[in-house]
Amino acid sequence: MRFNEELKRLKVYEAGKPIELVVREFGIEEKDVIKLASNENPYGCSKKAIEAVKKNVEKMNLYPDDSMYELKKKLSNRFLVDSKNIIIGAGSDQILEFATRAILNRDSKVLMSKITFAMYEIYALSQGAKILRSSCYRHDLDEFYDIYKKEKPDIIFICTPNNPTGDALDKKYLYKFLEKVKNCLVIVDGAYMEYTAYKDEKKRVEPKDLIENFENVLYLGTFSKAYGLGGMRVGYGIANQEIIKNLYKLRPPFNITTLSLKAATAALEDEEFVKSSVERNFIQMQRYVNFAIKKGLEYIDSYTNFITYIFPKEISSKEFSNMLLRRGVIVRDLTGYGLNAIRVTIGTKEQNSIFFEKFDEVLNEY
Amino acid sequence: MRFNEELKRLKVYEAGKPIELVVREFGIEEKDVIKLASNENPYGCSKKAIEAVKKNVEKMNLYPDDSMYELKKKLSNRFLVDSKNIIIGAGSDQILEFATRAILNRDSKVLMSKITFAMYEIYALSQGAKILRSSCYRHDLDEFYDIYKKEKPDIIFICTPNNPTGDALDKKYLYKFLEKVKNCLVIVDGAYMEYTAYKDEKKRVEPKDLIENFENVLYLGTFSKAYGLGGMRVGYGIANQEIIKNLYKLRPPFNITTLSLKAATAALEDEEFVKSSVERNFIQMQRYVNFAIKKGLEYIDSYTNFITYIFPKEISSKEFSNMLLRRGVIVRDLTGYGLNAIRVTIGTKEQNSIFFEKFDEVLNEY
Repeated sequence: MRFNEELKRLKVYEAGKPIELVVREFGIEEKDVIKLASNENPYGCSKKAIEAVKKNVEKMNLYPDDSMYELKKKLSNRFLVDSKNIIIGAGSDQILEFATRAILNRDSKVLMSKITFAMYEIYALSQGAKILRSSCYRHDLDEFYDIYKKEKPDIIFICTPNNPTGDALDKKYLYKFLEKVKNCLVIVDGAYMEYTAYKDEKKRVEPKDLIENFENVLYLGTFSKAYGLGGMRVGYGIANQEIIKNLYKLRPPFNITTLSLKAATAALEDEEFVKSSVERNFIQMQRYVNFAIKKGLEYIDSYTNFITYIFPKEISSKEFSNMLLRRGVIVRDLTGYGLNAIRVTIGTKEQNSIFFEKFDEVLNEY
Repeated sequence: MRFNEELKRLKVYEAGKPIELVVREFGIEEKDVIKLASNENPYGCSKKAIEAVKKNVEKMNLYPDDSMYELKKKLSNRFLVDSKNIIIGAGSDQILEFATRAILNRDSKVLMSKITFAMYEIYALSQGAKILRSSCYRHDLDEFYDIYKKEKPDIIFICTPNNPTGDALDKKYLYKFLEKVKNCLVIVDGAYMEYTAYKDEKKRVEPKDLIENFENVLYLGTFSKAYGLGGMRVGYGIANQEIIKNLYKLRPPFNITTLSLKAATAALEDEEFVKSSVERNFIQMQRYVNFAIKKGLEYIDSYTNFITYIFPKEISSKEFSNMLLRRGVIVRDLTGYGLNAIRVTIGTKEQNSIFFEKFDEVLNEY
């Protein structure tokens, strides 16, 4: 028995530590643990989604409608695209998996920003592709274009707003780049787009407009963030039908659960929840900005539901986040991404107050 | 943009028609549709699983514990294997996907029975592998061995009991084969094993015993059938740690939902539900056997929660199942598998009575 060569190069994605683990490892009570590590929606999800799940909980024995007719119809109405332009995944992650498996092989190359969502690399490596990266954590699309011309990558990943840094691209700047890039799939990952669109209209990217203008672009969205359904694993891809048809070939049957399907479908009937989550997010975000300024900490202006604090050399982000962890506050250390920084999910008012308090404690002790 | 060659050969898996679709297409009321097409547990699932979901429904915003600590611990106790011998998938399907992607490439071959679970072929083709099949729908392991010696496949799929036919292998016969097969991964798919083990102790395959004896075997089990959680997408693979470690490299983070994790974990605390489901299944199964005998219909002796009726030439299983469909009874036509037969999930007493009634109606009209 021999495993494929690609596996040797594969890293395992490091997820945010779950609350259960902190409870187990540090003996802290569950109610005293604050997780600001996975960009989950701190306001939960729509009551309509909760009702839909409760109503269907006795149907867990039944497979979901694998055509996902209702969900696709609702998404189609929401984004003004045809259902045939939509594919549903177990999180937008799974659409990334379909796309990389559909296109990449051992002779392929992919291009992404220096610091961006870790799964791009993992999926590309699992297909044996070569990874090319720009030199800056921000998406410098001029540099992207230079590399594109020279290296001819098969997929370009554009994460806007970018995770784990939080910065976002102007739509005009993105479009100027897309107009020049014809011979590869461009994945525009808008997992946090609801936040960006609220904060700055100039940075809003609409999938309808995108796919009408560019036949080689796949837009990704998710129910995990602004819709508050991270635990239910539902995301979507929007692209021209030719792309969708090919991705569909790699979609396993029943790729989202019966309850996920019901929850996501119901969540689309409650845009009010999304709006309120996003509004509250930016009110709380301001506190994080103020706190950073007060402490003289460098931060990245964020268009998402998280903020990145960059530490001075004297403070190790790894050690700092471990010290927070022992106090029951889980944040994401970005050392693995090559940044001496932490990424903090903007929580509820109460959670954020505790974060500031514990941060101060650690700072004093450091 | 160019898609991988493999996609051209890929078929899309045809799932059992969902109730929603029959409601939409034929205007039949939901309460009048009986789905006996996807081998779902007609008795629902454990009340403990339902309670666990209700209790956690407000946590849909939170990602699951990606270590799946509790679930693996419970499975480890249930099967008397180490947690490190276990991997969890979104259905056992996903473990098939990991295994095929970990091992197969364009130079690979796989071996399976002439008629068996359709996803084996689909996953193998998506990796570009060549498909070898034995000539009989039953697993003739002597023929398997001849092909193994000659063709040196990289993966052998053994589905016991076999889906969609329902027959199962004697453990001794299987072990005799496994002892001779050393240089490839053998996947023993026991998705319906709870049913088989109840009906015939000689056909029971225990993962602990299996992996202690054979280091190249991967056993698959699922919560979708006897545990009644088909809609929640949870399955597991059990194998030696080397295999599990490699499969883990292809597991995407958060591959089952927060509620699926809670439901499956709770379901393992209620073996009584499984036992009662299986017992009732075989009481009802006897009615299907009697019915077939009375009608002079050929059937395959089944070790699962479904039964296969093979039709005489004069009756087209495709047409017959369409006629049932228009009466609100969904069964699985096996024409696509090369059998003029239908596969019928053993339902509840009431569902089965309606099935027999509608079957008679169609027979009279045919």
